[in-house]
Order: sequence, then C-alpha cells, then structure tokens
Amino acid sequence: MSLKDEIAEQPDVLNRLLTEQWPRVQEIAAALKTQSFDYVFLAARGTSDHAGLYAKYLWGSVNHLPIALAAPSLFSRYGTPPSLARALVIGISQSGQSPDIVSVIAVGHRQGRPTLAITNKPDSPLGQAAKWVVDIAAGAERAVAATKTYTAQLMAVALLSVALADDADRYAALRQTPEWVAQVLAYDETIRQIAERYRYMEQCVVIGRGFNYATAFEWSLKLKELAYVVSEPYSSADFQHGPIAVVSQGFPVFAVVPDGAVFDDQLALLQRLKHDHHVELLVISDRREALDLADTPIPLPAGIPEWITPLVDIVPAQLFCYYLTRAKGFDTESPRGLHKVTKTQ
Amino acid sequence: MSLKDEIAEQPDVLNRLLTEQWPRVQEIAAALKTQSFDYVFLAARGTSDHAGLYAKYLWGSVNHLPIALAAPSLFSRYGTPPSLARALVIGISQSGQSPDIVSVIAVGHRQGRPTLAITNKPDSPLGQAAKWVVDIAAGAERAVAATKTYTAQLMAVALLSVALADDADRYAALRQTPEWVAQVLAYDETIRQIAERYRYMEQCVVIGRGFNYATAFEWSLKLKELAYVVSEPYSSADFQHGPIAVVSQGFPVFAVVPDGAVFDDQLALLQRLKHDHHVELLVISDRREALDLADTPIPLPAGIPEWITPLVDIVPAQLFCYYLTRAKGFDTESPRGLHKVTKTQ
Repeated sequence: MSLKDEIAEQPDVLNRLLTEQWPRVQEIAAALKTQSFDYVFLAARGTSDHAGLYAKYLWGSVNHLPIALAAPSLFSRYGTPPSLARALVIGISQSGQSPDIVSVIAVGHRQGRPTLAITNKPDSPLGQAAKWVVDIAAGAERAVAATKTYTAQLMAVALLSVALADDADRYAALRQTPEWVAQVLAYDETIRQIAERYRYMEQCVVIGRGFNYATAFEWSLKLKELAYVVSEPYSSADFQHGPIAVVSQGFPVFAVVPDGAVFDDQLALLQRLKHDHHVELLVISDRREALDLADTPIPLPAGIPEWITPLVDIVPAQLFCYYLTRAKGFDTESPRGLHKVTKTQ
Repeated sequence: MSLKDEIAEQPDVLNRLLTEQWPRVQEIAAALKTQSFDYVFLAARGTSDHAGLYAKYLWGSVNHLPIALAAPSLFSRYGTPPSLARALVIGISQSGQSPDIVSVIAVGHRQGRPTLAITNKPDSPLGQAAKWVVDIAAGAERAVAATKTYTAQLMAVALLSVALADDADRYAALRQTPEWVAQVLAYDETIRQIAERYRYMEQCVVIGRGFNYATAFEWSLKLKELAYVVSEPYSSADFQHGPIAVVSQGFPVFAVVPDGAVFDDQLALLQRLKHDHHVELLVISDRREALDLADTPIPLPAGIPEWITPLVDIVPAQLFCYYLTRAKGFDTESPRGLHKVTKTQ
C-alpha cells in the first residue's frame, strides 16, 4: 500500500466505520450518557490533534460540550497535572503509543474520571489505558503521512456526536460521506496538473475557520511533512490579528471555504487579500463567489452540510500534497526526519 | 512613544502591576475563591491568546486548573455555544473591543457563570461585560505590534496564580522580574548586531515548550507582523510529529530553552537538529549546553524560576524582531495590513 492507495481507500474506510463500527459507537455513547461530566479534556498530537480540533467545533456546537485541549507536558514532565473533576478525558492517537498522550488518560483514570480512546490500535497502551475505545478500523497505514486514519478519526468524532445527539437525520447525512469523498477522488488528474504550478513554492499560508479550522491545520501539516513547504494554518479571524502582515504581491494563500456560517467572513478576507494585497489564491469551495476569486479553484460537490465538509475537503488537499511532493521530487512514502510512530514524553 | 520606547518601558509597567495593581488582584482572587468552578474557559486572539497559553500552563501546573481555550466563532457565528456549566469564563484583550471575545463573556454571564476580563482598557466593551476586571495598566500602546501589553498580560496571569495559591514565596520571586527584564534590555547593542545576520531570512521555525510554548508563539507572531518572516511556532514535541520534515541544512531554527522540567527534551531535539540536520540555531537560554550548540547564542540571566522565564525571555526576542525589521527596511511602528484594534466577529 502506497500513500496514493491509502488516499484512494478512504471511501471504503469511512463506509466500514459507518456500518461495522456504528453499533459499538452507539453503545459507547449510551454508556457515556450515564456518566456525569461538564466538559471534555482531550489529548492528541500531530494529525490526531487536528481531529481534536474538529471535535472542539462539532461537539461544541452540536452537543454543547466545551473541549479543553490538553497540554500533555503538564502530565508527563511537570508532574503537577490539573484536577480533571467534571471532565470526560479523551485521547486520540493512530498508533496509541505516544507516552505523553497515554499519561493524560492514566491521570484521568486515577482521578476516577470516565476515559475514552479513539485509535487505530485498540490493543495499544492508549487503548488499554482507556475505559472505552472507539476503533477507527482503518487497517494498516504504511505511509508515514497520515491520510485515511485522519478522515477515519474525523468520522469517529462525527459518529460520537450523532450518537450522543441521537439524531437520525444527521446519521443519514453522514452516510453520504463516502460518496462525496469518491467524487473528489475523481479530480485526481486535474489536481495532478494543478500541482505543477507550485513546484517552486517554498512557503504559504492556509486559511480555514470553524469546522474547517481543522482542515487548515491538516492541509498545512501535509504540505510540511510531504512537500517540505513552510506553511502556516490560520483561522480567517486570527490571520487578521497580525499574521496578515507577511503577505505581499504573489504570496500564495490556500483557503478552504465551503458554504456555511463563516463563509461571508472568509469571503470578505479573500476579497481583501486579492484586491488589496494581490496574493495568489488557491481555493477549495462549493461557492462560485469564492472560486471566482481564485487563481487556482478546486470545486467541491454541492450540498454537503458544513459540519461534514472537513471529511470531504481534506481529500483534494491530500491529493494536492501528494502530487506536489512528486513534482518536487521528494519521497511520498517516507519523508525525511520522520517515523510512523513518534513517541514524545 | 515608539515601539522601541514601549519595549524599554517594560520594567516600569511590570513594577506598576506588582505594586499598584496587586491589592486589586488579591481582592479578585479572594472573590473567585468564593465561586464554584472546575475549569477555566478562556477567549483571546493574537498576542492575548499567547497570554492565554501561559495561563494554560501556569494555572494548570500551580493552581491545578484545566484551561479550555475558546473557539470564539461558536459564540459569534454558529449561534450554538457550548454549555459553560462549572466554568470560570475569562476574556483577555488589550483593547477590549473585539466583538467575538466580548460575546464569549456575554454568554458566560447569561449562563450565570463567573466572568473575568484582563485588559488594558477597563472601560471597554469587554471590561463592561465582565464581573471582575484586572487592569493591566500598561498605559497607551501606540505601536501596532504589542510588546508591553503582552508582558503586562503575562504578569496579570502570574499575579492571579500567586494570589489564588496565596504563595508569598512566589510573590517574592515575581518581584524580581522587572530587574531581570532590565538586565536583558541591556543586551540592546549586542542584539542589534546579531540581527544583521538574518537580513535575508524569509522563513524560520520557533521552538518552545511548557511555560515557554507561549514565548514561541509570541516571538513567531512578532517575526511575522514586524519583519514579514514566515515563521511557525512549535512545541519541541509537536515539531517531531511531522513538521521537522521541513528543515534542511542551514534552515533557521529559533529556540527558547531555559532551564527547567522540559530542558532535557528540548536539548535532545536541538542536538538532533544540529548534528543530524545541520540547521542554523539561534538559542535563548541560561544553560551552557544549549548556548554552545547555537550559531547565535543569547544568554539569559541565571536563576530565574522556570515559571517566570516567559516574562523575561520574550524581551530579547522583541529586541531581535525590532532590529531585524530595521535591517530589512520595514516600518517598526505600523506594519502593512494591520491596525492597532482588530475587530473580528
């Protein structure tokens, strides 16, 4: 299995979660409802941290649950962890092996809190430390850069939200995700051609907001770890609180701006960037007004509910990073300086 | 008042907080102790968000309080904010004017939660929305890039921690901060010379961890908004979960690595970056082992407790950004594309 195969496998992986894992997710949600907690304390690193960002917005808006993203070093290095009273403690990790993430779950357990792991390896130290485990069941991921385990983690987060809200309409909408992902996978040849233009790009910024704040972080990380592009992710709001100063004429700005509650704010920023700062825009969107501003438009299928878009719009971004990496002549399977499992303390 | 004057004014600003504002901070801490809450829900953007990061580590380790950093758009755009049961709700903003930050405090108030603002403008919408207000009393800040209001926000966060813990030893240690800051301000001419080397630098990464994760973010933001350098902040742990792939021979890595609980981890990363990846290192530290690895070492005064170092070690970073901006011929007072007050929704 190569990186390209793993990207292509995503509709199947998501289908498996929607069918085979869904009963178990419903059982876990039912068990969680018997627990007493007021917020979620969530630990993750790298790509898994971006799934945590998605949870912050989805569970925050749909399930009204505030999410505190853990500072793992408070647990693993400072030895004086916060009190987790009233928290549901969650760890997300593909491998389930990073000791700092496991230590957060272990502290939650010692403090008598409910604990949940979302992982591709239920038998890992993380899976063993947690009371409940959602198995993302993505199969072995061999490429160092995570792709199918990222969308599978997002799907696990989405299924937990749907099960906690007991919302049949949302489940029905989510069932369409594999088909939407298959539709964007069909852009393969178009995106291969698009990537050529960026062969000599050394830096860029990536803009996303709300549910797709996570997409901006994940796209940016893939640009770094595969194509060695120095890319920084921002919400359209944070970007205007300082970092916008870095852009000048021709500076590449990538943006993921599907229709939804933050679309108008994001469109206003893109208009300002194009008309006042004359940047180069690469835009992933289902809205004509945003695509028309772009030097490089990547259209999304119409009609995807905003809360589901992160599972779909990262896929053209993955393909883009894959082809950019090939255009630059780098190794798509084993980027320099990285290993599949990173064990930080 | 120019940016340079505001940087130089920091010992006076910190002294004022330590003396004139300290009684009021103690009153607020006493009032907070009568409230019932299990965690802090904190909203901020830009530089103020970095003061929030410092709070996450300091209050987490010393006061055992978990901190959830808010996603303001859930309040201002999605209209479905999380339930803030059991939270102390805090907003940090120099100007107190950004509507999205004010909306988080307003929702906290409507849900009957205790609310606190940390601001340089107690009469602002943020100050008026919150039940308690810590005035950072930094005086007017005219330069667009925040410097003295950042260290003043850190001091407000530190004073609240000390008052909540009722710890006279920590207060005594904090009283030495203005003197330590004055000591690093004396590096002025050395740092002016150091900055020359980076005249043509277009991108870099900035590494910090634990208490100084905030320093990495703030240093990186100053590099962007003043010197237009594309710089990305990382914890030494997160950096190894992917982004390390961007570095190659000669790539500039800035690191703030004072002695303390995460020093050994950070030193190991710097050794790996120097010996395996042959990067260019600029290091702020009080430890010889770290400074000896650096192409450009910036020594810190010895003996500063780790939890206080963020108030001191950002100062040489501010001077560095100031002189780098001058070396590049940019405007230190009004960076392109920015205004002093940014009102995001």
